[in-house]
Amino acid sequence: MHNFTYHNPVKIVFGKNSINKLNELIAPKQKILLAYGGGSIKSNGVYQQIISALPDHQIFEFAGIEANPEYDTLVKAINICKAEKIDLILAVGGGSVIDGCKLVALASHYDGEAWDILTNPTLEFTKAIPLGTVLTLPATGSEMNCGSVISRRSIGAKLAFGNPLVYPKFSILDPEVTYTLPKRQLQNGVIDPFIHVTEQYLTTDINTDIQDGFAESVLRTLVKVGKDIVNGSTNYDTRANWMWAATNALNGIIGVGVDQDWATHMIGHELTAAYGLDHAQTLAIVAPQLWRFQFEAKVSKLAKLGRNVWGLENLEDRLVATQAIILTEEFFHSLEVATKLSDYNIVIEAEKIANTLFAHNSTNLGENKAINKEAVIEILTKAQ
Amino acid sequence: MHNFTYHNPVKIVFGKNSINKLNELIAPKQKILLAYGGGSIKSNGVYQQIISALPDHQIFEFAGIEANPEYDTLVKAINICKAEKIDLILAVGGGSVIDGCKLVALASHYDGEAWDILTNPTLEFTKAIPLGTVLTLPATGSEMNCGSVISRRSIGAKLAFGNPLVYPKFSILDPEVTYTLPKRQLQNGVIDPFIHVTEQYLTTDINTDIQDGFAESVLRTLVKVGKDIVNGSTNYDTRANWMWAATNALNGIIGVGVDQDWATHMIGHELTAAYGLDHAQTLAIVAPQLWRFQFEAKVSKLAKLGRNVWGLENLEDRLVATQAIILTEEFFHSLEVATKLSDYNIVIEAEKIANTLFAHNSTNLGENKAINKEAVIEILTKAQ
Repeated sequence: MHNFTYHNPVKIVFGKNSINKLNELIAPKQKILLAYGGGSIKSNGVYQQIISALPDHQIFEFAGIEANPEYDTLVKAINICKAEKIDLILAVGGGSVIDGCKLVALASHYDGEAWDILTNPTLEFTKAIPLGTVLTLPATGSEMNCGSVISRRSIGAKLAFGNPLVYPKFSILDPEVTYTLPKRQLQNGVIDPFIHVTEQYLTTDINTDIQDGFAESVLRTLVKVGKDIVNGSTNYDTRANWMWAATNALNGIIGVGVDQDWATHMIGHELTAAYGLDHAQTLAIVAPQLWRFQFEAKVSKLAKLGRNVWGLENLEDRLVATQAIILTEEFFHSLEVATKLSDYNIVIEAEKIANTLFAHNSTNLGENKAINKEAVIEILTKAQ
Repeated sequence: MHNFTYHNPVKIVFGKNSINKLNELIAPKQKILLAYGGGSIKSNGVYQQIISALPDHQIFEFAGIEANPEYDTLVKAINICKAEKIDLILAVGGGSVIDGCKLVALASHYDGEAWDILTNPTLEFTKAIPLGTVLTLPATGSEMNCGSVISRRSIGAKLAFGNPLVYPKFSILDPEVTYTLPKRQLQNGVIDPFIHVTEQYLTTDINTDIQDGFAESVLRTLVKVGKDIVNGSTNYDTRANWMWAATNALNGIIGVGVDQDWATHMIGHELTAAYGLDHAQTLAIVAPQLWRFQFEAKVSKLAKLGRNVWGLENLEDRLVATQAIILTEEFFHSLEVATKLSDYNIVIEAEKIANTLFAHNSTNLGENKAINKEAVIEILTKAQ
């Protein structure tokens, strides 16, 4: 086990009708920026629950934060926060709204251009506007971490930052608010946390029994509930287990002291940029081929995946590992999520994608830095 | 799944040589109360590591916090903190030292008698002295929770309190400092977290897949490393997995949204008070008989224990559950920990113990409040 530091100060308020508790979570008389995406929170009742829970607060609304949150949009929110001296940002939505609000929270106490936060990792900050969230789409884990990914379409950039100051002070997770999500978001909401786990779990086997066991628990839960979720089940416990699984997939607890990969995410980002695929769609395409390319390095953990998630009993690691990848692909297919670019009628320009990727990455990718440009080309070609 | 709130702000600094990081964790020029138990930290090098890591701080030493920390001792520490205006308490030891320092931290900003904190749960507090810990004995989980149990021998009392203000700001967990622990503490350090998990896991089955999976991971890890730990293995990963398992057994993450029992602990406390058994020794005696007494209520979870921890494959819940209890007893025996009072040459006065227990408990015990006085008598008689 590697040395690690773990510190996650987010307060999770989980369960039915928990939006009611907003009034206990936010101090009286605070000025709140209520930030959200499209209008779905108005049609599914979440907006009204929030307004009802905060009768005595001064609320400034900011709508229109996009999927893959757009920098130019967020700058408008930053300007409101600065002008109105907002006390708390309440992000209502999925990972995009929450990620966007993390930038707003930090940039509102920064005198320079907000984009610096994404381009200059050595900048130091001492203050951010406190952030609270009401999660409506389980998937990214942003509700319980301090990371954020921001897009700036005018220059074709999609960059990440992380800062402990933007851990949400609280996140409200009511599984019932997910009942009205459309199928594509449900599919993404199963795939995304699944790959978040494998990025931290399918790496080098360094005897991290607690972390591996927790990771396998999240995967087993996603496997158990995945198909019902995609089919729109409104069984409360199914939704609750899914929601809590997605949060634990990326709140840090399964990733402490282990090697981490994240090459699937890096390659996937390029596919989203080039072909407009959803983030989760790209992960389902890239991951299986990346595991095959890295088979020797990952065989021990792939075998654990086979035994402890897929219930395989063969004693030979390589056989179990091979089968584990196939069963994972079949799981994605059972969710009606494709694992090949050709399923989306995309003809891959593998070399071009690899060139773009390494134009903004100075080192090879993956837990062993084994994914170089040629590797990306091979993985993408096999994912055709 | 029940609704829940989860909030654990403790920063964990885990790994080899992590005591070195004290200087980064504590602001310059702070006045520190360095609190510990007996002299073991001087013979095993921990004391010297701490002093070396904090060359520029003003350190007040407070030694002699006992196992089952004694109120009268802690009052002396409170007086030092008040007189010297201590900025931070550094608790170095196991659960007793850390529990004791939690009382010191809170009482030092309270004008009344410190004992009020244990007897009046309606008291409200706004401030405590910040607490940091260096854990030397994995067992209780106190390093990552806000609970504390304090004894006051002059009046025969052993009472608990919990307050979010006494969450440690940081806890340093270096597995290497456990290498010199004596066998009895190693035994206790496996049993104690095992039962912490079962108090939260062997209850009603309410479809809490993530929590159950995490609980089973902690149990499987303790089963995997238990015998090696008790035999004094100094394999680093074995110690690291044990230490991290013990912390996760009682940091809240496996207990959110589930029913909790804790009757084994309540009965065990009486056995410690009456016969001087170690806390963990009492748990190993009480738990199996309590599970048998509560068999109908716990059968579904006992069967999960059998399948997911003990690897039993029989399809019938009751058979698996029965066998799971036997295998757990055998596990305790493999650690050379007894499961009967007669093994300690104790002849139980079951009715007297039960009377004492219910003299300071106004309600029945357990997740279903099914453990009344007669139940305690039956459980203790069977544990003879």
